[in-house]
Amino acid sequence: MATKTPITVAYGDGIGPEIMEATLRILAEAGAQLDIERIEIGEKVYLAGNPAGIEPGAFDSLRRTKVFLKAPITTPQGGGYKSLNVTVRKTFGLYANVRPCVSYHPFVETKHPVMDVVIVRENEEDVYGGIEYRQTGQVTQCLKLISRPGTEKIVRYAFEYARRNGRKKVTCFTKDNIMKITDGLFHKVFDEIASEYADIENEHWIVDIGAAKLSDTPENFDVVVLPNLYGDVLSDVAAQIAGSVGLAGSANIGESIAMFEAIHGSAPRRAGQNLANPSGLFLGAVMMLVHLGQTEVAERAHNAWLRTMEDGVHTYDIYKEGVSREKVGTREFAEAVVARLGRRPETLKAVSYKAGGGEAAFATRMAREAAAAAKELTGVDVYLDWKDGSAEQLGGAMENLAGDGLHISSIANRGVKVWPGGAAETFCSDHWRCRFRSESGGRVTHAQVASLLARAAEAGFDFIKTENLYDFDGQPGYSHAQE
Amino acid sequence: MATKTPITVAYGDGIGPEIMEATLRILAEAGAQLDIERIEIGEKVYLAGNPAGIEPGAFDSLRRTKVFLKAPITTPQGGGYKSLNVTVRKTFGLYANVRPCVSYHPFVETKHPVMDVVIVRENEEDVYGGIEYRQTGQVTQCLKLISRPGTEKIVRYAFEYARRNGRKKVTCFTKDNIMKITDGLFHKVFDEIASEYADIENEHWIVDIGAAKLSDTPENFDVVVLPNLYGDVLSDVAAQIAGSVGLAGSANIGESIAMFEAIHGSAPRRAGQNLANPSGLFLGAVMMLVHLGQTEVAERAHNAWLRTMEDGVHTYDIYKEGVSREKVGTREFAEAVVARLGRRPETLKAVSYKAGGGEAAFATRMAREAAAAAKELTGVDVYLDWKDGSAEQLGGAMENLAGDGLHISSIANRGVKVWPGGAAETFCSDHWRCRFRSESGGRVTHAQVASLLARAAEAGFDFIKTENLYDFDGQPGYSHAQE
Repeated sequence: MATKTPITVAYGDGIGPEIMEATLRILAEAGAQLDIERIEIGEKVYLAGNPAGIEPGAFDSLRRTKVFLKAPITTPQGGGYKSLNVTVRKTFGLYANVRPCVSYHPFVETKHPVMDVVIVRENEEDVYGGIEYRQTGQVTQCLKLISRPGTEKIVRYAFEYARRNGRKKVTCFTKDNIMKITDGLFHKVFDEIASEYADIENEHWIVDIGAAKLSDTPENFDVVVLPNLYGDVLSDVAAQIAGSVGLAGSANIGESIAMFEAIHGSAPRRAGQNLANPSGLFLGAVMMLVHLGQTEVAERAHNAWLRTMEDGVHTYDIYKEGVSREKVGTREFAEAVVARLGRRPETLKAVSYKAGGGEAAFATRMAREAAAAAKELTGVDVYLDWKDGSAEQLGGAMENLAGDGLHISSIANRGVKVWPGGAAETFCSDHWRCRFRSESGGRVTHAQVASLLARAAEAGFDFIKTENLYDFDGQPGYSHAQE
Repeated sequence: MATKTPITVAYGDGIGPEIMEATLRILAEAGAQLDIERIEIGEKVYLAGNPAGIEPGAFDSLRRTKVFLKAPITTPQGGGYKSLNVTVRKTFGLYANVRPCVSYHPFVETKHPVMDVVIVRENEEDVYGGIEYRQTGQVTQCLKLISRPGTEKIVRYAFEYARRNGRKKVTCFTKDNIMKITDGLFHKVFDEIASEYADIENEHWIVDIGAAKLSDTPENFDVVVLPNLYGDVLSDVAAQIAGSVGLAGSANIGESIAMFEAIHGSAPRRAGQNLANPSGLFLGAVMMLVHLGQTEVAERAHNAWLRTMEDGVHTYDIYKEGVSREKVGTREFAEAVVARLGRRPETLKAVSYKAGGGEAAFATRMAREAAAAAKELTGVDVYLDWKDGSAEQLGGAMENLAGDGLHISSIANRGVKVWPGGAAETFCSDHWRCRFRSESGGRVTHAQVASLLARAAEAGFDFIKTENLYDFDGQPGYSHAQE
């Protein structure tokens, strides 16, 4: 512990500098061994012409220290600015967002007195690639991507987190009753990896019911692992119902680099008044200490903070007459925590961090490679922008376009089969999916797909996109339209 | 009111028949003028070989009456069965799912004593087309579709609902800070239509924050309109935190046909014991009466039910010592409501339904057509299944593939730009997006796209999908990769 560990620190905007100073003050007094490299991020850096709010040179510091403690920033008004968090997350592959949501009843008001949930959110995939297309007058499209290696990483992270933190259960939410291929993959990988952790209970809920249970009876959950979008929504729900978003920190974990922060924003209107609650950033910093293996310091600091909460020494945001005892500013709050270093909470549960329980130990563990499956091209979906008639008429036109070993097998609109057959009541947009298959029922070549498109171009059809149909090990790798 | 209105009724499975009998008994005593056509749906129908659990002939009844009161069903275990609800919804274009979530404090236990939220969920689009593809060993894909006419219909429905039901505010949730094209369209259409309803307040929240607020302080919401997936999750959250999913009904509204039901399932273990709470189906039936214009009957029945709740006459599921007064079975509960017809609640707020406030009046109103935009093809994204090297190597290979007026402008992996440039830490899956554009910067033809694919086929590349890049009125209709 005598050697100082280099970390990169950014003070950010708004209340950022104050809560960072308070946080670093507690950490130093608690005995953290940190060698701080300071970088600039945020509003000034955006306005100086860096579209992601971070200077190119700052990335060098992150690559060197591999640990980033970040205060909230302000993104300037107006277009053209990119999210700093998204940039850092994507550049460094920070695949796991970890957010403990704890209630501190009866010291902080909450409708859920017993709540200690850790949300582990996949952070790179799903609809957050932001891969979007408008290809017809009426219809827009976003791609949701779920990969096996991405899912393996996040699910394994959740179980390792549970094991290292003495957690009993990992719950997974998906919507695989509808999205059998994408969410189905997430659920399948969850089951596979869960079977390697016999010491940890596991369960899966469909996300609608799961979300309802989580928001009503969070005491029934422990660690919850989620695809990106569900995780985004439900981590905010969990933090909110625990009592205050002002008290939550989070970690963004990658294979080589990790970032720690508060979940709240820079609150410019509270800036510079010694008002802000530093607890969110402080609890993020505690996660950082555990990550760095400085577990004794983390435990000492965290327990002193819990004791401060319990003693009713509260900043304005959680101060409540009759519950709180003393309303303090940012600096005084930090001093109150410092004064309690070495003490533990009496009513709230004290924390205990095991030595060697750092994240780094497994962060570089490679995801398993998917078993190679035999892949065969068996058809193609050609999507058209078309508004010249009925499904029946389009069916006829596509029959003319077929040939060269391909035939048209069905047409769907917004996922509903409309040809052959179809119901008169089905609303048809200008976005049509025409499914072509091998006439012989066998394999299709890429050259056949290219020729089909050449014929479509010649016939004047506006084909807007294609999706190849593959079998993997003889099983169709695509959905069928609802009939 | 003397003429009976034909409706289609299905008694369903499990507790279905009991709660349907109880519901129809109250309706009849309240003076509902209904001419009931009974159809069979559910377990027996599935097992008789109908994959969606409904006989083909039953659709004729629905087409004739245009109104469907449906008890819950049991879907048999095992694969190959399709969701009956999804089938009916898709076949008849039931675009709006409407779910009032009301708390009945202090008579039914809830953490949210003041809650009266109506969730209006888009019911046809988003990821629920179930349009999915696995095209590489590692990556699976689902298409999220949001259309302008689909969005106009649901948003207009929400505002009309608000106006006809004396509601003050409509709130919209999207994630348009990330999904600027799809969720951006939903938000834009919301703003457009909101401007036509000056008498109704409107607001928009990013779905993560919105969901957190809704689950913590539902008293701040009134009508909430949502894309399908957010609506699916948050309608369950809202129903749950209101107190009991056993007390919620819902409507599925199409342009010509509507379906009314309870939101809970068939609870086979409670079946046949005169135990089940018929309230969910009953409240669905009240929505049906309003839809049919039998508003006086709806008001009379609903207020008698509220009085019954208030009088503490409760079925087992909501019975609570000290709050409830009498524990009753399904039939006795119905009789208790019947006995209170003509009475109104004293503590809870009585309902009032305006004559002529039916849904039918605007259900057939056409969505506005999008203003036709000038559309120009300016490039194509070709997606490859490729695992033969680095982004740099792929860039070189794609430069060889270009020509014929096209050049390769960038390569991305899971939405992150990896060529030219790119960070060493970015994890690359086997799913690559290669963006080709016109060499001259101008228009691209469909024939050029087909030729490019022919060259890719010849060179042995496994192109798995394509997405054309269009400008609409000079503005790009596609997203840029995160750099």
